[in-house]
Amino acid sequence: MSNSVFSSFETVKFEGADSSNPLAYRFYDAERVVMGKPLKDHLRFAVAYWHSLAMSGSDPFGGPTINRPWMAAGDPIAQAKVKADAAFDLFRVLDLPFYCFHDADMAPAADTLAETLKNFHTMADYLGEKMQSSKTKLLWGTANLFSAPRFMAGASTNPDPEVFAWCAATIKHCMDVTKQLGGSNYVLWGGREGYETLLNTNMKHELDQMGRMLSLVVEYKHKIGFDGQILIEPKPKEPTSHQYDFDAATVYGFLKAYGLENEVRVNLEANHATLAGHSFEHEIATASAFGILGSLDINRGDALLGWDTDQFPNDLWTMTMSMYHVIKAGGLGKGGCNFDAKVRRQSFTAEDMIHAHVGGADLCARAFLTAAKLIEDGKYDAILAERYAGWQQPGAQAMFSGKQSLEDIAAWAEKEGINPQPRSGKQEQIENLLMRSIYTDKI
Amino acid sequence: MSNSVFSSFETVKFEGADSSNPLAYRFYDAERVVMGKPLKDHLRFAVAYWHSLAMSGSDPFGGPTINRPWMAAGDPIAQAKVKADAAFDLFRVLDLPFYCFHDADMAPAADTLAETLKNFHTMADYLGEKMQSSKTKLLWGTANLFSAPRFMAGASTNPDPEVFAWCAATIKHCMDVTKQLGGSNYVLWGGREGYETLLNTNMKHELDQMGRMLSLVVEYKHKIGFDGQILIEPKPKEPTSHQYDFDAATVYGFLKAYGLENEVRVNLEANHATLAGHSFEHEIATASAFGILGSLDINRGDALLGWDTDQFPNDLWTMTMSMYHVIKAGGLGKGGCNFDAKVRRQSFTAEDMIHAHVGGADLCARAFLTAAKLIEDGKYDAILAERYAGWQQPGAQAMFSGKQSLEDIAAWAEKEGINPQPRSGKQEQIENLLMRSIYTDKI
Amino acid sequence: MSNSVFSSFETVKFEGADSSNPLAYRFYDAERVVMGKPLKDHLRFAVAYWHSLAMSGSDPFGGPTINRPWMAAGDPIAQAKVKADAAFDLFRVLDLPFYCFHDADMAPAADTLAETLKNFHTMADYLGEKMQSSKTKLLWGTANLFSAPRFMAGASTNPDPEVFAWCAATIKHCMDVTKQLGGSNYVLWGGREGYETLLNTNMKHELDQMGRMLSLVVEYKHKIGFDGQILIEPKPKEPTSHQYDFDAATVYGFLKAYGLENEVRVNLEANHATLAGHSFEHEIATASAFGILGSLDINRGDALLGWDTDQFPNDLWTMTMSMYHVIKAGGLGKGGCNFDAKVRRQSFTAEDMIHAHVGGADLCARAFLTAAKLIEDGKYDAILAERYAGWQQPGAQAMFSGKQSLEDIAAWAEKEGINPQPRSGKQEQIENLLMRSIYTDKI
Amino acid sequence: MSNSVFSSFETVKFEGADSSNPLAYRFYDAERVVMGKPLKDHLRFAVAYWHSLAMSGSDPFGGPTINRPWMAAGDPIAQAKVKADAAFDLFRVLDLPFYCFHDADMAPAADTLAETLKNFHTMADYLGEKMQSSKTKLLWGTANLFSAPRFMAGASTNPDPEVFAWCAATIKHCMDVTKQLGGSNYVLWGGREGYETLLNTNMKHELDQMGRMLSLVVEYKHKIGFDGQILIEPKPKEPTSHQYDFDAATVYGFLKAYGLENEVRVNLEANHATLAGHSFEHEIATASAFGILGSLDINRGDALLGWDTDQFPNDLWTMTMSMYHVIKAGGLGKGGCNFDAKVRRQSFTAEDMIHAHVGGADLCARAFLTAAKLIEDGKYDAILAERYAGWQQPGAQAMFSGKQSLEDIAAWAEKEGINPQPRSGKQEQIENLLMRSIYTDKI
Repeated sequence: MSNSVFSSFETVKFEGADSSNPLAYRFYDAERVVMGKPLKDHLRFAVAYWHSLAMSGSDPFGGPTINRPWMAAGDPIAQAKVKADAAFDLFRVLDLPFYCFHDADMAPAADTLAETLKNFHTMADYLGEKMQSSKTKLLWGTANLFSAPRFMAGASTNPDPEVFAWCAATIKHCMDVTKQLGGSNYVLWGGREGYETLLNTNMKHELDQMGRMLSLVVEYKHKIGFDGQILIEPKPKEPTSHQYDFDAATVYGFLKAYGLENEVRVNLEANHATLAGHSFEHEIATASAFGILGSLDINRGDALLGWDTDQFPNDLWTMTMSMYHVIKAGGLGKGGCNFDAKVRRQSFTAEDMIHAHVGGADLCARAFLTAAKLIEDGKYDAILAERYAGWQQPGAQAMFSGKQSLEDIAAWAEKEGINPQPRSGKQEQIENLLMRSIYTDKI
Repeated sequence: MSNSVFSSFETVKFEGADSSNPLAYRFYDAERVVMGKPLKDHLRFAVAYWHSLAMSGSDPFGGPTINRPWMAAGDPIAQAKVKADAAFDLFRVLDLPFYCFHDADMAPAADTLAETLKNFHTMADYLGEKMQSSKTKLLWGTANLFSAPRFMAGASTNPDPEVFAWCAATIKHCMDVTKQLGGSNYVLWGGREGYETLLNTNMKHELDQMGRMLSLVVEYKHKIGFDGQILIEPKPKEPTSHQYDFDAATVYGFLKAYGLENEVRVNLEANHATLAGHSFEHEIATASAFGILGSLDINRGDALLGWDTDQFPNDLWTMTMSMYHVIKAGGLGKGGCNFDAKVRRQSFTAEDMIHAHVGGADLCARAFLTAAKLIEDGKYDAILAERYAGWQQPGAQAMFSGKQSLEDIAAWAEKEGINPQPRSGKQEQIENLLMRSIYTDKI
Repeated sequence: MSNSVFSSFETVKFEGADSSNPLAYRFYDAERVVMGKPLKDHLRFAVAYWHSLAMSGSDPFGGPTINRPWMAAGDPIAQAKVKADAAFDLFRVLDLPFYCFHDADMAPAADTLAETLKNFHTMADYLGEKMQSSKTKLLWGTANLFSAPRFMAGASTNPDPEVFAWCAATIKHCMDVTKQLGGSNYVLWGGREGYETLLNTNMKHELDQMGRMLSLVVEYKHKIGFDGQILIEPKPKEPTSHQYDFDAATVYGFLKAYGLENEVRVNLEANHATLAGHSFEHEIATASAFGILGSLDINRGDALLGWDTDQFPNDLWTMTMSMYHVIKAGGLGKGGCNFDAKVRRQSFTAEDMIHAHVGGADLCARAFLTAAKLIEDGKYDAILAERYAGWQQPGAQAMFSGKQSLEDIAAWAEKEGINPQPRSGKQEQIENLLMRSIYTDKI
Repeated sequence: MSNSVFSSFETVKFEGADSSNPLAYRFYDAERVVMGKPLKDHLRFAVAYWHSLAMSGSDPFGGPTINRPWMAAGDPIAQAKVKADAAFDLFRVLDLPFYCFHDADMAPAADTLAETLKNFHTMADYLGEKMQSSKTKLLWGTANLFSAPRFMAGASTNPDPEVFAWCAATIKHCMDVTKQLGGSNYVLWGGREGYETLLNTNMKHELDQMGRMLSLVVEYKHKIGFDGQILIEPKPKEPTSHQYDFDAATVYGFLKAYGLENEVRVNLEANHATLAGHSFEHEIATASAFGILGSLDINRGDALLGWDTDQFPNDLWTMTMSMYHVIKAGGLGKGGCNFDAKVRRQSFTAEDMIHAHVGGADLCARAFLTAAKLIEDGKYDAILAERYAGWQQPGAQAMFSGKQSLEDIAAWAEKEGINPQPRSGKQEQIENLLMRSIYTDKI
């Protein structure tokens, strides 16, 4: 085993709810069978290479506070290998089944496209080797098409077609590597796919550019026989003033506009939901309603702040209801729960990194177990079913299924002299029921 | 002429930019020909029956401050006629070419569906008579499916199918009356089509209900030969916690999901854009990009407040850029500019009502004239065209049109060793150019 | 016992965490002794007359859904008595120790000031009688100086001095009645004390008017020997665009400006904190730091909505940390926890009202018990103490207490060549610790 | 003249409203006498060293796009001099009377406190020399106590007293240099004076630390005979979750708490107002009402975004009303208008930098001229005066000045049977009047 900043930590173990060990899982019992399969196969946790290995703690008003050995000056490839060794050591400590990366996280950029791609393949091979002796698999790969200055006016939506071509080349290689490493999904986050100001933007042209790129990606996926999912990650803004992939509903419309709704799904992030003015569970329920739920980026934002804080999650209510909607949607399939969360700028120690993941994984596990129990118990679902029961009646079904015209329905309503009566929405009763289910650790 | 609260006011006239008369139009010269037709035919201003005749000045913490004669106790139909007389007197004073109504604004609700519909037709006939001797036409009609308690859990999305039937009957009659009165559009605003809490909501079922109702409406439109537009008015929330017609992009996705994108367009409101986290011009540009721009609700919100303030507009920059995007989209067609704006609670006098409309119409007219001049001048458009000029090159067009695969483009990029260079986005230069154009009254 | 809408409900009893009775308290064991006194004396729960008896379920887009017998037409005083009977029946059912009122909640307004005051005293006497046979006491009284049209431009801050005088008269009588009924506090909420638009406002004059009124109130309190607290309730906006009592810090500055910081404290509301961009616990900690914590209005807002939703609380984390800061501040003293929360518009049944209060009281009780346990356990406080331990050193104390000048400190720092080293802020570790403490029902 | 990135630009000249030269001032006629003195002496424009010389265009998701010669590797002092030469060249081009700096902008940090201070004095002397041959003076100096990792948990509010001492030493030298260079003000911006999470924070202790530091600063100011103003710059959050200097009203309360309200004023920034939920004019009016208006940071935010975008201003309405309140407050005195604005990330050319300042200065100048004209015209002020005229009556003055008790006023109101009548707030009429005044370039 390599001698990394994480090598002194033992592998975190499940010890149960009563454990007082802060570096043990209390709820994440990976092998516990729930709803027919082990918890780990429901949740498919992943560690994010960028947040956990590449973040330096800088913010718009301050410099780096997290100084890892691989961030020091040195031969880029050698340092990238030190970083990779630490990454796999972290995976060992956390004992989570997946990881995710951007090309730029795991391989150094160089001065030219050719050298940059060469570095990327060098490191892809190195990661492949590391994976031989690791239990951790690749949940998804993606390309960073937002950090470098060439993307300042967009990636596939750039006014300069050469930037589009650069992106195409980068994505092609990133898809190749994702397939090579056995990834389950390929993700696109359009951090600069939007506008800084509408004043200098041709929105229609940019949307068409973005649609073209996505079509190219889907076509290439089929060509190389990549059997993972293609995922778009919605976010409304930041760093842009407006990002075209605003939220799940907007992405659905975009996919329909370019005929890609059966080829592409969404990777939903909690904090991005907050920035769009939605709850995480809303985004999940929306994607589910439109049949495009793909995977989750686990974190939390701060509703009182207007930027992407990407904190580790600690809101049990939201996470439980999110998991409820995931289960109702049929689960995450090839997707998973990627910790797109970073330790706070003041939490610069390696120990902080472990604590953060342990708390986050445990919260999600507990939320999933509670959601499963809630569904198995059935009381909550019964309240919902009862609320919509009227629609099961034959007359209502006839209206619903399109067998009656507006005139037919109007004529019936007038003839019957209908006078629909109010029924309580029971919000407080439901909230009380859920408080009992969510805020207990007897699961 | 009737003796209404507005009868003492003269018809407002155009007097030019140098007029010091606060009750004259300084920019709204209805007959001024711009881009080939009179200003009035571009803008198609409408007075809103609800805000201008039916609002009482109450807010969540206070009661009515605006007491009009028709709000006093009395025979409902008689009072509705007093209100209608005042309405047409207001139209005369403002000399604007259109008005809009909800069924509930112009006819009193009764205890039963049958009586309510009867009142509605009685008043529709009365309005028809009034229109004989008025220059003011109907821009659009709509049904109020949110105020009555029966709609508390939604209109077409209600868990109770009888409410759906009630809505169907109401909409049918409202479409009939809109056609009868020569309306150019029929609008649906889904004020309660969403959820108060996701906890008691079956989102997929409700979306399907809403899709069904819209399909019925479109089918009926064709059946009766109504040649106006069917419009949905997006709003993200309020009074609901979430409204399904969140914004233009969301509505587009919804229309695509139910195959209605060629049948239905959007009626965009400035304040609703603000609540969704967008600028008004963004919403217009989005609807334009997706080919669903229908009509405008003119007002403004307050970005520092979280509710629909529906104020009369006074932001010249936003309105000018909004009109710029309207012109670029080919104009409003059968749509128009409806003043969905209400006087403040403290502005309870009839005079306040006139001032408010004069200021609003003048701002929009000035904005339109400036936008037209900006386009005719061409400097601004030239900057935009130059920014995307690279996409006119043959190689770029080949990529854009789908003649090349991801691999083709990647191979070319690698072979060429492309290295796209940064170009200034020129935001400040463009803003300076626009400040010169917008903040001058020499138009 | 009267035959009210609440008379069919049994008094809610404490049954413990394992009870499955939805109308039992699971954590609110009123007599349980914690930190030296019964839980009920720490929390001092109060039922709000306005939200629980006077709300009709209307919202800005819809009419009443909650129709109680006393809202029907009838003799105003007779109906006010029916309402009062129902109120005391509700207090009996909930078995909470206090209630709160506005003058306008419990007595009908009349056409003149004299009649309005007469009605108020009539009903005050009636409430006094009811209290003879009830366990429920008055936590606080207040005057509604925002609903009537005369307050549309402010109460004490009105441009019209006659409105100021009207308020003075009303407050005088309301203070008299609060004293008569044994109230522990007198509260002022300045719902219209601010501006709708700064454009027509003389802010300095209005602040001076508000300062004058508060000075009159304090003077009168001493004159009549009222030994309760005078409380201001901060809120940033709504119904106004800006309310002068924006938040706890702003109120503190206002009190200092008019020399009233030792005479007046704050009544903090959770939802008002949200609207001001703060957490509830932040507001409590701020008031505590400035020595002006008075009482709490218990509810919750929705951070995704921009208005005062006044929902019953269900966020255990926030409530626990709020109670932690209350205990750290020395408790609520004469203040208490008033349920300034209303059932949702769709929750119109009497049963909903009971469920809502039971859930809310239980959440607060659980939060208090957890906070007390957290403090008694000591681990959390120890982490905090350790973080600031450096300030206990003599050199640091000398700086802190003002014994050294800027030059002294600079000279020392330069001479020593200090180089302060980073220490982890341990946010994730602390959050994990708190998750264990808060999300367990073993208390 | 040095050969800098700005040396090819001519000095920007005033050419009048009709000039079509984009690099001319159209409204900023520095010598034009308004209200008794030249425009330049009212506005006292300053260029910000940090935004204009030190910003690299990076954002949380992307690296530098602005590469100036002095940012390349090299001897730190030599490069700082290249930067200073460019700065003074920029000042020459813009022909604005002032500049502002942080210590860290103009001198390189070193490994130790001693060396850092030495660098600072070396560069201070160099700037002093540059100023000999420049018309540009120092508006204010300040210390950057937020960027370096040592400040990650606060500056004066740090849990580590050594950080407090470091700050004290830095501020002392920064005040010395500000005095040496003839600065008119010394500013404190507490970028990290607040908390990242309340969970690890002792708010009361931190407030006392901050109060102590400010007292030391005021004491030192008097000791060295610095006759400039001491200014605090309010901001609600970012990079912190909460900053103690939230807004003008909060800072006023803080100053009162520590007895410093006559010694310290505020430097108000437009974008910080937006983040606090206020308009810029609100913050100015508030500071004016409390007598603490000091200086302005000119920029704008984007109300739809939740972070400090620091854009150059282009909202004529807001700026005009802001200038109106500045004039009403008696002007800026020793303060001025500092362009705390940065070019967009895509506006990386030197030319963009000039355009941005020209547009910003012109907007402010136009706004000031319009505000002055509005005041000289008198119509707007007359509307305001009339609104509060009732308070000039003897009876009202008696209430206002404290000659009557609550009882006296109540007795009078009851005896008179007062019944105050509603008066229109005339918001729309006032907005129309202001639109005419603001949106004309005939000034």
